[in-house]
Amino acid sequence: MERSCLAIILAAGDSTRMKSSMSKVLHPIASRPMIAHVMEAIAKTDISAAALVVGRNADEVSAAASIGGIAVESYLQKERLGTGHAVLAAREAIARGYDDILVAYGDVPLLTDAPLRAARLGLADGNDIVVIGFHTDNPNAYGRLLVKDGELIAIREAKDATDAELAVTWCNSGLMAINGRKALDLLDRIGNNNAKGEYYLTDLVEIARSLGGRAVAVDAPEVEMTGCNNRAELASIERLWQERRRHELMLSGVTMIAPETVFLAYDTVIGQDALIEPNVVFGPGAVIEGGAVIHAFSHIEGAHVSAGATVGPFARLRPGADLASGAKVGNFCEVKNGKIAEGAKVNHLTYIGDATIGAGSNIGAGTITCNYDGVNKHETHIGANTFVGSNSSLVAPLRIGDGAYIASGSVITDDVPADALAFGRARQEVKPERAKLVRERALAIKAAKKGTGSH
Amino acid sequence: MERSCLAIILAAGDSTRMKSSMSKVLHPIASRPMIAHVMEAIAKTDISAAALVVGRNADEVSAAASIGGIAVESYLQKERLGTGHAVLAAREAIARGYDDILVAYGDVPLLTDAPLRAARLGLADGNDIVVIGFHTDNPNAYGRLLVKDGELIAIREAKDATDAELAVTWCNSGLMAINGRKALDLLDRIGNNNAKGEYYLTDLVEIARSLGGRAVAVDAPEVEMTGCNNRAELASIERLWQERRRHELMLSGVTMIAPETVFLAYDTVIGQDALIEPNVVFGPGAVIEGGAVIHAFSHIEGAHVSAGATVGPFARLRPGADLASGAKVGNFCEVKNGKIAEGAKVNHLTYIGDATIGAGSNIGAGTITCNYDGVNKHETHIGANTFVGSNSSLVAPLRIGDGAYIASGSVITDDVPADALAFGRARQEVKPERAKLVRERALAIKAAKKGTGSH
Amino acid sequence: MERSCLAIILAAGDSTRMKSSMSKVLHPIASRPMIAHVMEAIAKTDISAAALVVGRNADEVSAAASIGGIAVESYLQKERLGTGHAVLAAREAIARGYDDILVAYGDVPLLTDAPLRAARLGLADGNDIVVIGFHTDNPNAYGRLLVKDGELIAIREAKDATDAELAVTWCNSGLMAINGRKALDLLDRIGNNNAKGEYYLTDLVEIARSLGGRAVAVDAPEVEMTGCNNRAELASIERLWQERRRHELMLSGVTMIAPETVFLAYDTVIGQDALIEPNVVFGPGAVIEGGAVIHAFSHIEGAHVSAGATVGPFARLRPGADLASGAKVGNFCEVKNGKIAEGAKVNHLTYIGDATIGAGSNIGAGTITCNYDGVNKHETHIGANTFVGSNSSLVAPLRIGDGAYIASGSVITDDVPADALAFGRARQEVKPERAKLVRERALAIKAAKKGTGSH
Repeated sequence: MERSCLAIILAAGDSTRMKSSMSKVLHPIASRPMIAHVMEAIAKTDISAAALVVGRNADEVSAAASIGGIAVESYLQKERLGTGHAVLAAREAIARGYDDILVAYGDVPLLTDAPLRAARLGLADGNDIVVIGFHTDNPNAYGRLLVKDGELIAIREAKDATDAELAVTWCNSGLMAINGRKALDLLDRIGNNNAKGEYYLTDLVEIARSLGGRAVAVDAPEVEMTGCNNRAELASIERLWQERRRHELMLSGVTMIAPETVFLAYDTVIGQDALIEPNVVFGPGAVIEGGAVIHAFSHIEGAHVSAGATVGPFARLRPGADLASGAKVGNFCEVKNGKIAEGAKVNHLTYIGDATIGAGSNIGAGTITCNYDGVNKHETHIGANTFVGSNSSLVAPLRIGDGAYIASGSVITDDVPADALAFGRARQEVKPERAKLVRERALAIKAAKKGTGSH
Repeated sequence: MERSCLAIILAAGDSTRMKSSMSKVLHPIASRPMIAHVMEAIAKTDISAAALVVGRNADEVSAAASIGGIAVESYLQKERLGTGHAVLAAREAIARGYDDILVAYGDVPLLTDAPLRAARLGLADGNDIVVIGFHTDNPNAYGRLLVKDGELIAIREAKDATDAELAVTWCNSGLMAINGRKALDLLDRIGNNNAKGEYYLTDLVEIARSLGGRAVAVDAPEVEMTGCNNRAELASIERLWQERRRHELMLSGVTMIAPETVFLAYDTVIGQDALIEPNVVFGPGAVIEGGAVIHAFSHIEGAHVSAGATVGPFARLRPGADLASGAKVGNFCEVKNGKIAEGAKVNHLTYIGDATIGAGSNIGAGTITCNYDGVNKHETHIGANTFVGSNSSLVAPLRIGDGAYIASGSVITDDVPADALAFGRARQEVKPERAKLVRERALAIKAAKKGTGSH
Repeated sequence: MERSCLAIILAAGDSTRMKSSMSKVLHPIASRPMIAHVMEAIAKTDISAAALVVGRNADEVSAAASIGGIAVESYLQKERLGTGHAVLAAREAIARGYDDILVAYGDVPLLTDAPLRAARLGLADGNDIVVIGFHTDNPNAYGRLLVKDGELIAIREAKDATDAELAVTWCNSGLMAINGRKALDLLDRIGNNNAKGEYYLTDLVEIARSLGGRAVAVDAPEVEMTGCNNRAELASIERLWQERRRHELMLSGVTMIAPETVFLAYDTVIGQDALIEPNVVFGPGAVIEGGAVIHAFSHIEGAHVSAGATVGPFARLRPGADLASGAKVGNFCEVKNGKIAEGAKVNHLTYIGDATIGAGSNIGAGTITCNYDGVNKHETHIGANTFVGSNSSLVAPLRIGDGAYIASGSVITDDVPADALAFGRARQEVKPERAKLVRERALAIKAAKKGTGSH
């Protein structure tokens, strides 16, 4: 948009019903603080600047709100004297002069830019106040939007409403756009002559009109206006967010057998024709290319899975896991900071950490890259077309050359040249008939324990 | 309450539609038999004694019903001649004389004490019969509560009801309170002059009234009255129980990202500000302190997780697992009867059984405490600030001293003193170019297999 | 039925909204292509022959449709000129002459045989056309069934309908039965004189009537007529399928604590009194006998679990896994092509592949059967009542005799006779005070790394 715009995000309010040791707006939805979701919607609205009004956990809230591409100034709200008062905490920013002021809240993470854009268009049309409303079947205690001849006459609190007004199902979301050139004057006129002695932003409608200005309301989907006041509502918002995003992904060509069991992070990327089986959890930073297969019970975070790669079931990919085409990470395997090249297989009960595995290599069941010495992390580099026998311990730092063969059950501490056979295991010994003795001894121990038992 | 009370719980009825080899009331909800849930509600109602009327699996049902703090006598119902007859199986208990008699059922595990208390208050108000009713949108075949001037006139079976009576949506739950001083007399007056030749408890309303007594109905939430007649209903009751308990926990300050994927046991304790990620299953006896983090895909039973401890993803804590603050049990790890002290880490693919791990110790990936010799279980004690290298086998009984260091891939069979380095692994050998030979041999075996193949 | 019947299944249609690299009808529901579900319903309808009209992925679609006991001929639809034209792709089959022609679609996998049988009965009653309809609350764009005096007058497209016709909620599913003796004549009379220039099968109603024939409609449950046009609908159909099958299983005596988290394959067999805990995924070919217990987080495919056996939590059974009574496969264990005999236990972090384990044997935590040499798979045979110590590597081919005892942490490469003790592990060495040195060295490395750090 051509017009300049300041977004003011009220994030100081809290809710004792959250019963939380941290500010409400820091609680995550889809693996990032809810305030960051609000900021993303705002950032998409082509704003010029953002002013965050903060209270508890001010630094953390400011940090969480500073998502890519948006400059955020924070203003501390020292007292809680109502929404009108909260907005004026950002007086300094407002005073700089913007065409548009948008007022939003830190606890409505399902917000998209559409209603914000609609509200700004309302300002561009010459209105001084544009309130974002929503239609609902359960208006209950929400303020009602009273409209006459296309203009918004007033926002009526439910407790002050007549029966006719209570029948109105168009309600005030609290979000609002204000003529930025008049905003300070309007805001300063809000009084606190009411039961609670607070300054209500909703008064702006009647104030603007009394000065000859015009107010209107624009409509937003109810779901986008959903606020959060306790952890059951937090879970409900999470569910709505997940449902929306899963649906988008499915329409884009991702197969989810049981979408309700797939949990996405805010930034999860999944390509067309990828298959996501039931019970998959994504943490931040996962990129699943089209045509990849993620089997059931997988947990994927900060990892890249190429087309044609296969993950799970029961696999965990941690940050830095990178599977090339045809690579496979199977059950009870964990990969952290590990590149698995084309067609390499890590199929069973294996830990790969700080390692690279060359194309076509096969890592046997129970293999462990011993990457930690108690202080440092060390790297393991495994070449192409190697065979690492089952239950091997690869003690890093370590290099295993192309085509090398590690015998099962080996502890490998030194580099292995290409095409070499390495082993590090004791020769088997057999003691005939000795098992009986072992068992007799064990039974004797049991008997002795009983003899000295708990009586 | 001042008044004495006998609760009679009918638990002899069964349902062939359960298609079960055990009594319906033994089927668990939230990891304990449904009858135990009913008994808990009854126990909270300040009763004096409980009489259980049992049929199939009498001993198991009696045992399941004997939850803490409630003395249960069992009476065998030998014949099935209706609810009126079933209650009289406890004639001996009734004859002892109580102020109040409460009649409940073993298959309504969502029952709380509230309706039972309300029913007893009805008796205290001078009524002889107090029926517990519920309002429903689907009255279908339920008996209708016919009320006039605040008194309950009759319970009308649906099949005998007029159209006007069928329009009534207040229904009979079957639960009832009876004036205990008159109960035997009233119960003995129930006849079986009906199509099925059974004795119906519902007749008490009209019997009491015919003798000049008064009957009333009190209301209960429909959900609490939900009974169980097949395994689909069993699952439905489980879902309702879980939803109720999850909601309580969330309101108390527990975060559940996807509450519908968290399965609680009847006694699961979770503190404020604990985070429970998706797909967590609790068995009985789990205590999660506030501020603990339970990652996705965790299974926790009989375990204690302190504030600041972290579990999962893909972790299993079994009875006796006890995580101190800052302790961590990670993916594909199992802990059974194991104490993990402050800040100790068990991060990957590890089995800890019958062991203690000292503060700050790091247990490498793939470590196994070999606690079983085929007959006995032995203990492993690991000191503080130790480092147990990956893929180690710790053969119990075993003591590892503070600050000890176990080399990766070791088999440790003898005690390790504090600050000692221990290893038990073969030296690595490398045979240059030998991998080619190994592969050739393997290919030859393959070729030979083909030659002697399935034709 | 006595009457001969040709089923024509239209499977050439596709949907760009699927955004898929393969034909829509190949997308699986309950682990098999949706067309196979349709074919199963058709196969149950006692048909004589099936003609499949295919387009994209013709060979794969034909293969997927060829389920047991049904002979399928495929006809390629080269042009897309409407449903009437599509049916005539099977002209050759129709011309062979059948009493009944059934027309169905490849993308309605919830179809059962009941509506198909009803439609055929309609033909047997002397009708020339029998349309399968469904009642719906959201008729929207569906064609309406216009019925008069019990006869079907016409199928009215929503866009051509009057307000009165739009009020009709009985809609055309597209499925239809046609008098086979008149079918070719009727089909050849369909014209394309309409906006799109296509040949519509629905015109048959009016054509048949104009020739003095009679048309009727029969009713089917709306759910069975659900078609699939994008992946959200695919997921929705999967959910409906799963709900239907779970419900059947529960009514048959299977306990599912949280049925919505149990995912069944089309052929999953579960016996009465089996317990399926939350979060269990079945692939094809699983047979769970009555009384078996499947704990949470299990993944079972192509496996047989006997009564009294226990699986999970966190267990994976792959094809060929076969658990006898009392056998146990526990957490983080994978069994592939492995027989676990009576009472044998594989409890923790173990991989069993291509192996047999004798009755009463105990396989220790972390045991790996090393069945792969990089080229071939080899077998491991473990006798009865053996003890395989934890973290052992069993290098196949291998035979371990009855009663043998393998010491923990051993690598076993050679056969072990019955009752022998075998070990293959290095003797433990201890270097007093050396751990301090190890730590100092590690800290020095850390310091050195810092010195040459990223700046």
